Amino acid sequence: MNYQAILEDIYQEIRPLIGKGEVADYIPALARVKPDQFAMAVVTLDGKEYVVGDAEPRFSIQSISKVYTLAQVFAKQGDAIWKRVGREPSGNPFNSLVQLEHEYGFPRNPFINAGALVITDMLLEEFNDPHNEVLNFIRRLTGNSTINFDNEVAASERKNGHLNASVVNFLKSHHNIKGEVEEVLDLYFQHCSVNMNVRELAHSFLFLVNHGIIPDKNKEILSKSQAKRLNALMLTCGMYDEAGDFAFRVGLPGKSGVGGGIAAIIPGELSVAVWSPALNEKGNSLAGMQALELFTTKTGISVF
Amino acid sequence: MNYQAILEDIYQEIRPLIGKGEVADYIPALARVKPDQFAMAVVTLDGKEYVVGDAEPRFSIQSISKVYTLAQVFAKQGDAIWKRVGREPSGNPFNSLVQLEHEYGFPRNPFINAGALVITDMLLEEFNDPHNEVLNFIRRLTGNSTINFDNEVAASERKNGHLNASVVNFLKSHHNIKGEVEEVLDLYFQHCSVNMNVRELAHSFLFLVNHGIIPDKNKEILSKSQAKRLNALMLTCGMYDEAGDFAFRVGLPGKSGVGGGIAAIIPGELSVAVWSPALNEKGNSLAGMQALELFTTKTGISVF
Amino acid sequence: MNYQAILEDIYQEIRPLIGKGEVADYIPALARVKPDQFAMAVVTLDGKEYVVGDAEPRFSIQSISKVYTLAQVFAKQGDAIWKRVGREPSGNPFNSLVQLEHEYGFPRNPFINAGALVITDMLLEEFNDPHNEVLNFIRRLTGNSTINFDNEVAASERKNGHLNASVVNFLKSHHNIKGEVEEVLDLYFQHCSVNMNVRELAHSFLFLVNHGIIPDKNKEILSKSQAKRLNALMLTCGMYDEAGDFAFRVGLPGKSGVGGGIAAIIPGELSVAVWSPALNEKGNSLAGMQALELFTTKTGISVF
Amino acid sequence: MNYQAILEDIYQEIRPLIGKGEVADYIPALARVKPDQFAMAVVTLDGKEYVVGDAEPRFSIQSISKVYTLAQVFAKQGDAIWKRVGREPSGNPFNSLVQLEHEYGFPRNPFINAGALVITDMLLEEFNDPHNEVLNFIRRLTGNSTINFDNEVAASERKNGHLNASVVNFLKSHHNIKGEVEEVLDLYFQHCSVNMNVRELAHSFLFLVNHGIIPDKNKEILSKSQAKRLNALMLTCGMYDEAGDFAFRVGLPGKSGVGGGIAAIIPGELSVAVWSPALNEKGNSLAGMQALELFTTKTGISVF
Repeated sequence: MNYQAILEDIYQEIRPLIGKGEVADYIPALARVKPDQFAMAVVTLDGKEYVVGDAEPRFSIQSISKVYTLAQVFAKQGDAIWKRVGREPSGNPFNSLVQLEHEYGFPRNPFINAGALVITDMLLEEFNDPHNEVLNFIRRLTGNSTINFDNEVAASERKNGHLNASVVNFLKSHHNIKGEVEEVLDLYFQHCSVNMNVRELAHSFLFLVNHGIIPDKNKEILSKSQAKRLNALMLTCGMYDEAGDFAFRVGLPGKSGVGGGIAAIIPGELSVAVWSPALNEKGNSLAGMQALELFTTKTGISVF
Repeated sequence: MNYQAILEDIYQEIRPLIGKGEVADYIPALARVKPDQFAMAVVTLDGKEYVVGDAEPRFSIQSISKVYTLAQVFAKQGDAIWKRVGREPSGNPFNSLVQLEHEYGFPRNPFINAGALVITDMLLEEFNDPHNEVLNFIRRLTGNSTINFDNEVAASERKNGHLNASVVNFLKSHHNIKGEVEEVLDLYFQHCSVNMNVRELAHSFLFLVNHGIIPDKNKEILSKSQAKRLNALMLTCGMYDEAGDFAFRVGLPGKSGVGGGIAAIIPGELSVAVWSPALNEKGNSLAGMQALELFTTKTGISVF
Repeated sequence: MNYQAILEDIYQEIRPLIGKGEVADYIPALARVKPDQFAMAVVTLDGKEYVVGDAEPRFSIQSISKVYTLAQVFAKQGDAIWKRVGREPSGNPFNSLVQLEHEYGFPRNPFINAGALVITDMLLEEFNDPHNEVLNFIRRLTGNSTINFDNEVAASERKNGHLNASVVNFLKSHHNIKGEVEEVLDLYFQHCSVNMNVRELAHSFLFLVNHGIIPDKNKEILSKSQAKRLNALMLTCGMYDEAGDFAFRVGLPGKSGVGGGIAAIIPGELSVAVWSPALNEKGNSLAGMQALELFTTKTGISVF
Repeated sequence: MNYQAILEDIYQEIRPLIGKGEVADYIPALARVKPDQFAMAVVTLDGKEYVVGDAEPRFSIQSISKVYTLAQVFAKQGDAIWKRVGREPSGNPFNSLVQLEHEYGFPRNPFINAGALVITDMLLEEFNDPHNEVLNFIRRLTGNSTINFDNEVAASERKNGHLNASVVNFLKSHHNIKGEVEEVLDLYFQHCSVNMNVRELAHSFLFLVNHGIIPDKNKEILSKSQAKRLNALMLTCGMYDEAGDFAFRVGLPGKSGVGGGIAAIIPGELSVAVWSPALNEKGNSLAGMQALELFTTKTGISVF
């Protein structure tokens, strides 16, 4: 399939939407990102790469980092993690405390904030130097050692992160956080602050395309069964409370972040990443969602 | 692939689970079904059929009928139906009124009761004789004209259906039911009362395997895009509040009913149906869930 | 105390508020009531009567009738009624299903709709001709045999009463309604449809001023302890989800209705009724609330 | 009335209940309190004092302190405080986050934890040395300068106070906390840690009996209207989610704490305090609740 032509078609069609929506503005470092940017990358399992738009500038991956931390902890602890976090869609905004209270501090899934904070707590249990381990893991997945945390973003989110502090304290009151509240928050905001561009993002998801194995290094991150399961989780829970709509319109497992990035995969075939900072009202990239819908429409491939 | 051998392996492995769990007992006609029954059928796109267990007796399909009624209404009204019902997982039990109240009578998706009742209301708008149209549609999908309603079951559910009556009245108070409350309930319980066996059930889902077209009749029920979307909905919302777990463990679009049936598909390949009346605590067939998990494990195929 | 002078002062002060707010418009018979009406009556325990405003026209008492039906059932069944309905403020709008679902069909108190519907169901259990018994009870309390149901209002509410039908069906699904759904709804809407004027309303509450006994007839309706308890319930639960604010501003046990009436009492002293049809956003008479606040401010008496 | 005889009667009747229930055990300092203790004190407006039981040992007043801090802030800021906290019963447990989320960080009333934490934040705004101001205020109300914080209790609650930390952070995320999270929590746990005995507790509430004025010092704490309003709040919201039941059974404005103390008043007449550390399932003193019910039954006085 001529992916380059498809990406260029999409770029043309999507132009009127670029910049529509609102850039995340809860911290200054995100608020000053220019809204009218767009980039999209496809990387196939055999290593070919296709790109349109502003593919070089890196952006804040934010919640997309939850896929990496989940993969790290899942690889270490296996199915034991499901004793502390569920696998069901939440039906509520990503940062809601309502369901968490009704369900006694057991987060619905690892992609809502509460679940990701429990996963972060597990990183603290597993690793002596978890900050470094997370960063090295992401560098290994992309094959790029210049990827780094953005300490300004992390510090700024930490300072304004009262809602996440509320969630961690609530989880702690239900004994579902073992470490110190402050350490969990530090690590969480740090891994959310990683900067990447769409090309790097697409590369980093190839192990999920390839049943758990980084293709060019033949390095197993997850077992085939685990990779399949992580993909299922992304499909049902990866897009905040727009997961059902994303499955309906796009039909791919994927994960979004409030930095405007979305990464998605077609198992066994390719990984696709898109970035456009202006968000729809659900907190997902407005142009990015549309671009991915066009991608599955034009290629005719989806998991359904 | 040797599906017959796989089914037989599954049957052996699953034996200790058959009869574990509880048969639905809210109406007498369901309560007296013997719990220790099991059957499973695979039908491939090229028409081959594989069966194990008690494949002849028919059972009450219950909520599986929501797939047929949704397909009928989706075919008629297209995307207009999404003005009255959503496409997101609910995160709540199938009959909950909580979310419905918070969201002003807009059901989360067409597979929770509230959503299915809105879809039923649309059937009343579309057809002069909706009872007959629903039955004929199901007969057409299975190619079997002996399939029928079970009037005893329908009457019994109607008599005890106070929770569904509560839901319809609530929807009506939010102007999301246009017909008469009584007519919506009559039609709803009637279409839930259809009896089928696993073989028939598997056949009836082939149009969803085949991108919207009944394979042997080459009759288009839904467009390719609509079929893909209905499959996405089954994956995210088809198994009550166990949808995420089903996606995680099984990885297929599917729909269950409290009669103990589950139907699922692998797009482009096959349809698989299982029946075992004893339910787990989420209201899905306990042995059936496990059988489907074994099926994707043994065949190595899932949508992820 | 010169109650007449106080009432006239209040009338002057309240004039600018009369007609502010919105008349209940969910049924035509209520919607066509002229909003700029106002009347207020005080009846002391020794039988003196003071009136200002349009004291003759009768209005629809609506939820105020819940006080009468509760008194009738409480007199008959005593504390047994608390097995089926609670005594706690609800913290939610009067017709919410959320708390009812979380608490498995046990209504918070007898003044929210769900609780009043359970009380209505008890009337059906207790009396062969409950419609007549309710009417006669109210006539006895007021000493006026011309008081009557408004059948047009009752029929109109019944036709549009989908939300209450939803509640009764929900209660029935939790086995907290013993009679037929239709009969409960008929009786409920009938007793809500009674018409009274402020003078009659004030008289009808004198038994609650007088520790359970109708003063001029020396007829015991409730025991002293029961009367005290019904008063406590009015204070904590009588004004929909504005009960706390009413206690805070007015400081009296009272009950309001969407027809714009409010009745309140000072135990051992007097009963006071007010009517003005335009409602605030909580569904209570806007001018009426303010008039009662002025009454306790000017007289210096409240239960606190 | 012979209050001494009444108290002694109550003591006899209540004996079988003393020690029934569970002592609060979430911190060691409270868990080791002996459950089978009981004391009760009445202080009339003219200064007479009546006591039964273990009236000398002091206990942790816990949430009863919320009455003092509310009075201090209400005296300083007047009705401005109602812009940041409501006056409605909550219908939920005292530490629930559900309603707080639905209502965007606006606590239902000043006696649930969220509301008391906002009031504590106001203390930080009003006073340079709020710890000292709170302590001095309580000493002034009781006329006893030996009353003090229990630093062990405060430190222990602070260490285990993740749920309150969750609430403060949540409020802060909705901009309803102006100070630092840590300072609010420190002050909150400190004022909850005050130790008193029943005699002191009864004395400290006399200003609420006396329309806002400390009787023997003729010192105005609150205006007459404010005192009435604070009393109304205690009646509708003072007993956690058992407020309705307390109003129903006891019929007095009051406030309880998990240390097993309850203080209540009859406006214009007397103040009554009771202490027994074993709690019912709602977190109120089991024997204490019953003792107060007996008190209003035997004296025949209540606000209703």
